[in-house]
Amino acid sequence: DAFIGAIHRHAANMDGKIELVCGALSINKDIAIESGRSLFLPEDRIYTSFEEMLEKEAALPEDKRMDFVTIVTPNFAHFAPAMMALEKGFHVVIEKPITLSLEEAIALDQKVQETGLILCLTHTYTGYPLVKEARKMIQDGKIGKVRKVYVEYTQGWLSRLTERESAGAAWRTDPKKSGKSGVMGDIGTHAFNLAEYISGLEVTELCSSLNVVVENRALDDDGAVLLKFNSGATGVLMATQIAAGEENNLKIRIYGELGGIEWHQQEPNSLIIKWLDKPMETYRAGTGYLSDIGRQNTRTPGGHPEGYLEAFANIYRNFAATLAARIDGSSVNSDVVEFPSVREGIRGMAFIENVVKSNESTEKWVKYEI
Amino acid sequence: DAFIGAIHRHAANMDGKIELVCGALSINKDIAIESGRSLFLPEDRIYTSFEEMLEKEAALPEDKRMDFVTIVTPNFAHFAPAMMALEKGFHVVIEKPITLSLEEAIALDQKVQETGLILCLTHTYTGYPLVKEARKMIQDGKIGKVRKVYVEYTQGWLSRLTERESAGAAWRTDPKKSGKSGVMGDIGTHAFNLAEYISGLEVTELCSSLNVVVENRALDDDGAVLLKFNSGATGVLMATQIAAGEENNLKIRIYGELGGIEWHQQEPNSLIIKWLDKPMETYRAGTGYLSDIGRQNTRTPGGHPEGYLEAFANIYRNFAATLAARIDGSSVNSDVVEFPSVREGIRGMAFIENVVKSNESTEKWVKYEI
Amino acid sequence: DAFIGAIHRHAANMDGKIELVCGALSINKDIAIESGRSLFLPEDRIYTSFEEMLEKEAALPEDKRMDFVTIVTPNFAHFAPAMMALEKGFHVVIEKPITLSLEEAIALDQKVQETGLILCLTHTYTGYPLVKEARKMIQDGKIGKVRKVYVEYTQGWLSRLTERESAGAAWRTDPKKSGKSGVMGDIGTHAFNLAEYISGLEVTELCSSLNVVVENRALDDDGAVLLKFNSGATGVLMATQIAAGEENNLKIRIYGELGGIEWHQQEPNSLIIKWLDKPMETYRAGTGYLSDIGRQNTRTPGGHPEGYLEAFANIYRNFAATLAARIDGSSVNSDVVEFPSVREGIRGMAFIENVVKSNESTEKWVKYEI
Amino acid sequence: DAFIGAIHRHAANMDGKIELVCGALSINKDIAIESGRSLFLPEDRIYTSFEEMLEKEAALPEDKRMDFVTIVTPNFAHFAPAMMALEKGFHVVIEKPITLSLEEAIALDQKVQETGLILCLTHTYTGYPLVKEARKMIQDGKIGKVRKVYVEYTQGWLSRLTERESAGAAWRTDPKKSGKSGVMGDIGTHAFNLAEYISGLEVTELCSSLNVVVENRALDDDGAVLLKFNSGATGVLMATQIAAGEENNLKIRIYGELGGIEWHQQEPNSLIIKWLDKPMETYRAGTGYLSDIGRQNTRTPGGHPEGYLEAFANIYRNFAATLAARIDGSSVNSDVVEFPSVREGIRGMAFIENVVKSNESTEKWVKYEI
Repeated sequence: DAFIGAIHRHAANMDGKIELVCGALSINKDIAIESGRSLFLPEDRIYTSFEEMLEKEAALPEDKRMDFVTIVTPNFAHFAPAMMALEKGFHVVIEKPITLSLEEAIALDQKVQETGLILCLTHTYTGYPLVKEARKMIQDGKIGKVRKVYVEYTQGWLSRLTERESAGAAWRTDPKKSGKSGVMGDIGTHAFNLAEYISGLEVTELCSSLNVVVENRALDDDGAVLLKFNSGATGVLMATQIAAGEENNLKIRIYGELGGIEWHQQEPNSLIIKWLDKPMETYRAGTGYLSDIGRQNTRTPGGHPEGYLEAFANIYRNFAATLAARIDGSSVNSDVVEFPSVREGIRGMAFIENVVKSNESTEKWVKYEI
Repeated sequence: DAFIGAIHRHAANMDGKIELVCGALSINKDIAIESGRSLFLPEDRIYTSFEEMLEKEAALPEDKRMDFVTIVTPNFAHFAPAMMALEKGFHVVIEKPITLSLEEAIALDQKVQETGLILCLTHTYTGYPLVKEARKMIQDGKIGKVRKVYVEYTQGWLSRLTERESAGAAWRTDPKKSGKSGVMGDIGTHAFNLAEYISGLEVTELCSSLNVVVENRALDDDGAVLLKFNSGATGVLMATQIAAGEENNLKIRIYGELGGIEWHQQEPNSLIIKWLDKPMETYRAGTGYLSDIGRQNTRTPGGHPEGYLEAFANIYRNFAATLAARIDGSSVNSDVVEFPSVREGIRGMAFIENVVKSNESTEKWVKYEI
Repeated sequence: DAFIGAIHRHAANMDGKIELVCGALSINKDIAIESGRSLFLPEDRIYTSFEEMLEKEAALPEDKRMDFVTIVTPNFAHFAPAMMALEKGFHVVIEKPITLSLEEAIALDQKVQETGLILCLTHTYTGYPLVKEARKMIQDGKIGKVRKVYVEYTQGWLSRLTERESAGAAWRTDPKKSGKSGVMGDIGTHAFNLAEYISGLEVTELCSSLNVVVENRALDDDGAVLLKFNSGATGVLMATQIAAGEENNLKIRIYGELGGIEWHQQEPNSLIIKWLDKPMETYRAGTGYLSDIGRQNTRTPGGHPEGYLEAFANIYRNFAATLAARIDGSSVNSDVVEFPSVREGIRGMAFIENVVKSNESTEKWVKYEI
Repeated sequence: DAFIGAIHRHAANMDGKIELVCGALSINKDIAIESGRSLFLPEDRIYTSFEEMLEKEAALPEDKRMDFVTIVTPNFAHFAPAMMALEKGFHVVIEKPITLSLEEAIALDQKVQETGLILCLTHTYTGYPLVKEARKMIQDGKIGKVRKVYVEYTQGWLSRLTERESAGAAWRTDPKKSGKSGVMGDIGTHAFNLAEYISGLEVTELCSSLNVVVENRALDDDGAVLLKFNSGATGVLMATQIAAGEENNLKIRIYGELGGIEWHQQEPNSLIIKWLDKPMETYRAGTGYLSDIGRQNTRTPGGHPEGYLEAFANIYRNFAATLAARIDGSSVNSDVVEFPSVREGIRGMAFIENVVKSNESTEKWVKYEI
């Protein structure tokens, strides 16, 4: 996938801690070679399948072979390379959603536990420093007990039958390649992950409605979900890809007894805190008054905006630091140097499956079950 | 109610077309007199009950008596004075929700039809010029067929047991005075009215969840509703009064095949149009490029912000112009000079009752029935 | 002037404390009568000149005649009616700039002092509650000693030779009717007044540059002024009417040792405070945490936006309360119930004259002299 | 300088086209080695002075030695390494301001012309895609002939005597290391460069006022400049580092006959176009409707915010592509693949020197001379 592959490379490059040393960039030898050269790969480490890559890399001496593999193929092609990588002893970075089905995610989890290897799931949006700051604030009780969660992710790029022109749209709207829900697999899981990450809560029941809005589309492209959380809080999750004119409009608002937090992915360097009895505050990325986790997941001082690639790079940087510590036998402060992993992958897959189940049910509430 | 009564007076005063000539301001004679004097009312037209007022005013010669009555009492005290006013031949301005129950609303509608008198329902937010412009744009097909409606109304003023200190909170959270739902009666109806007004659609099915978030409260203070519209479009309505830190945050977004409109009550002089394939536009109140309805429901040129009172005054101004035309035997252009009436009142009451019904049901979808 | 006359009426009407009882609305009898009737004036109090009005009203018994007169004619026609009104014993409300020249302003000041009557100058923008709150914050030392003032007022409505079509543009760009500077008389004085009002400082030196941008215009339509204040602080004032696309974009930012305040007239219900070492705050109109002056110059709770007309109405309301107290022999809290008067008028006229003098000088700095 | 060195590395890394192969990271051997190792440099290419580095690299075979050198030392240490690099045949990337004095800049220009080597000056802010789009719009006449330019750059980080604690503040406020003006050298040149870049105009006269606001500071920390451009347009430039609470608030507004553009560095993914007679538009980075230059200087689709590092990386990417084409004997489309160079360096140095000259003069206007 042209888009997400390049994103991963930019993000991995940014901090100078990760080097691309090999790749399985196409099953077509010529294309693979051409791509590999453009990325300055040595010819003997340009492969044409993940199997070839994993086998040949595993055969190299330990100090010569790659440390980890990144999997950025469409959803249906996550599980097999991830399993094989783990079996061959490689750590894994994997795009969300973690697999095509919950079942696969659970199998992957077992393999991770068995091998003790590190799996990093690139739920990008939790890489933003102010998302981490928001989570910390709620953990610290700043806004009191959480009462309400609104999370929404609106896009417009599937407002037309884009799948007829775009490979990225094509596999995302094909149930065999994308999974049981289009909109929830592609973006709903991000919204769900963000809600659980920041609130510190877990969804326990839900009521969903999914729609295929654009005629002749094979998968849903729009949906909304009413949520109940384990603490008694409630919420609403909205995800759509047919909101014509929207770009990548992920927003979250969480209200507690004392105030509410609000964060917009498209203006990620501000975190708004509204208080019951005092003026609204805007926390800004890169400032000195943030907590450790907010300050350390950034590169530039306030007013030098960081964005999507930096959030993504934070995930890679935290993963790389964790991996380097593993190799060195040292350790990192995992309160600050953290990234999503297989647990988040399982919860996301269960979210998709439970949303689909609820959508098909005439009962109002469905239990969120794994 | 101190708040809303003063709002009505400011709004009615603003354009110099309406004069307060009498009032039933308290059942306590001394308080009524004091209030009446502060409003420069002649002592013989300061009454202590609506019955007294309606009878005595009706007994005055036609050119001396009031033209219409405004009813700004709590919900449970709308129906009786409204019916009596109509029976005595007075036109009526009434706060939303129109009555305590759908049944009362239907009875009021029959009386309006029978008498041919004018009833104006102050759904304030449809008084904003850019709300009217948004409706016009959708009517004219600018954003194509509507696909999705998100409307939300978040407030924080009931985050605590405010009803213990505030009379306004007390009756709004008392089912006998407020009606079957707290949050939906007070603000959900506004959101619902706005959604139907701008989209031009009608809700046909809904799925709701209501919550009593603050302990010891007698009525719900939070809720969310999934919506289906008569055109096949879907939507989400969120209304809450426990979003700590929110003021009066009514927002609406409506997406069609070609683009989406977005309007925020707290920044009412901008209307955002996002387009599928071209730059986002911001329409501004008071500008020359608006349509007739947008231009005529305003007083000041662009950049001289109008607000809530002006929106409210537009309802009074349009009502007064319609009434003056009726008296003169002339007419107004009702495409531009318009205001909510008994139809909107009935739809709002049915909304409340259907939301409550859905909340109590284990079935996912409930038909919206009147 | 159609625009500003209507504004004054809306503003004076809003709070129900002021009644329009007479008017000199045109020198043409028929037009005067028609205008007067549309405003519900009795025919015998519709006059055709200010002289006629002032004489006839002065001849009425004290309890029948008007209490004060509002002067909303073009600048060149402020002085004569204001002087005559004061001489006849009427209080005066007058549009800014107070007169055509500094000399006239000084003469008016002497008359006000002599008569002891009240003169209210409608520098609208100081009527906003958050402008008053900002002034209070700086008075109270919240942001420390003031170091820097940026004030700007950008409009675009004179981007073309609008004076060929619009009477309002015609007199504003005619030096005989408008005064020595077009842009500074019309809007620069507002910016200057706002800067001195909020900062509590006085300009002592300035360096200006004025431009006639649109060809064939008789007066400047654009300018910028470097400022020095009595405290040692410095500033920049920008005023232009040829910023195509701008509406009425008055903004001010004032920085002290500890933080800065920022206010935008087009979003007047937010006051932004940026702090050196802690999160930015947004104060909102209508909230309980404001100071007395901020809370009392408002009508609606937070989130019910007030705008330009309410700011204007605050000036009328404070003037009316002061006048009523004078009549009653009671008093008002002039810390909270305040409005601009002849002092602000003189400072504004001196500002215009000193800016013109500086513009014509090759010396960098000109002393601000009265 | 810890800050800017890291920024350059992040920016150069991002696109995977540039590899750090050597460095002179400290004059202290141990520190140099430690820094070099942390950047994965081979030990024999970790140098302790630029002279050593340039000599030893020049002595390597052509295909082994570095292609270009980046100079990120304080201003006073730009000229010598840049001259020596050019003399040794290396291309140069250099931080702004290009040198300590205009004289040095002119000498550097001559050397660049003599050697035919490429010099890239990192005026970061012209690397933003929407800054480039704005320039293109004005070039294409979209807003008509330019009339007015407002550019401002406000920071608060020097509100206290920060130089006592921070090395970065220390050299920036030391005239021997920073140059003739503190605020204009550090940020005023950026604002000036942005204004000339977007408007396509050149400053011809100016009137400035500089202030040392914080006591005991050795250089100015605040200033404002009135500008005249070669086309007859005028402008205002404000630069301050004592605006307590501001981060890195660079903003520009340019008005033409038909409309105005507005861009804020802190929200860089939106470009606002205000029109005289139609709704305001917001152009967004990463969208398909941008021109070539806007689309090609970006990595991610709309709604995936890019920021400061990506803008910086655009300069490196365009420089690297130009350099690669030079090496290959191919070419790039220099309308789209462009970056600031020695011309911008000279104009910036002349700006600083003319502003200082004007500040010291009692004449209002000073000619901008090189």
